[in-house]
Amino acid sequence: MNVLMIYAHPEPTSFTGALKDAGVATLRQAGHAVVVSDLYAERFDPVAGRHDFNAVADAERFHYQTEQAHAHGTGGFAADLVREQQRLRDADLVVWLYPIWWGGMPAILKGWFDRVLAFGFAYADGRRFDSGFFPDKRGLLCLSTGGTRQRFSVGDAYGVSRLCCGRHSA
Amino acid sequence: MNVLMIYAHPEPTSFTGALKDAGVATLRQAGHAVVVSDLYAERFDPVAGRHDFNAVADAERFHYQTEQAHAHGTGGFAADLVREQQRLRDADLVVWLYPIWWGGMPAILKGWFDRVLAFGFAYADGRRFDSGFFPDKRGLLCLSTGGTRQRFSVGDAYGVSRLCCGRHSA
Repeated sequence: MNVLMIYAHPEPTSFTGALKDAGVATLRQAGHAVVVSDLYAERFDPVAGRHDFNAVADAERFHYQTEQAHAHGTGGFAADLVREQQRLRDADLVVWLYPIWWGGMPAILKGWFDRVLAFGFAYADGRRFDSGFFPDKRGLLCLSTGGTRQRFSVGDAYGVSRLCCGRHSA
Repeated sequence: MNVLMIYAHPEPTSFTGALKDAGVATLRQAGHAVVVSDLYAERFDPVAGRHDFNAVADAERFHYQTEQAHAHGTGGFAADLVREQQRLRDADLVVWLYPIWWGGMPAILKGWFDRVLAFGFAYADGRRFDSGFFPDKRGLLCLSTGGTRQRFSVGDAYGVSRLCCGRHSA
């Protein structure tokens, strides 16, 4: 199948980067087509704004969903959003791969959700969940969490991960 | 007291912008000193990276917390982070004011957490919660959520907010 991996880490030699490389290689060996949105390498801009659009619905007052719906109806999305939306359309499986920072995704990835999954393109009133735009796609979250080996030892900040993760880390 | 308001909305005439203006005016009338980090107006960069630092701990491999700790020890944070960290130090009360996008904060604000609340400055092993760096500060979340008046009516997407918010919207 077609796999889109959305990867957000600033360091290619990181553990998260190694997960990305291993995942891409394994999926390709299994016969799947893989596209990677490497947000850091592609210098993805996470800040929502007028630059999301080539078209303008209301030049006086910037209402984000109004501009998104207008752009969706007129082909008015900026080039980076056109590219990401097409990657998403083409995907059967979407994998989000990122480190947990402050309890959530890095800002560069949060901006992917804010900007790419636009009103009109990814959701609309009455078009959510089972009645949404992408009922046949599958999703997978692949998260890493921080700290040195020392911190995951007895008596240190996070304790021993084997105790919560069971056989997976045995 | 000293209030830091961290405000994230792209449109000054928005409802969230009006909340900001009303909050600032009310706090000042009550005798408090208010500083606003207007992330959109100040063009805050939410993407964590080498540009966070003037100093370099490891030029070969970018490990974010290592660079943060090094910068904290050597005064090596970039100017925007020095400014935001000083605003935070000076504050008795911190107010985060933002619209909920995709179940969380806009990317520009998530990056404020990622970059400003650096390891060594805002947390460290054994320095969290009651034993953290800022035990005497107070925090307030002020969130807005989207949709037109129509969507918050009987039979529409979100229903009637009065039913869940009770007397506050009566």
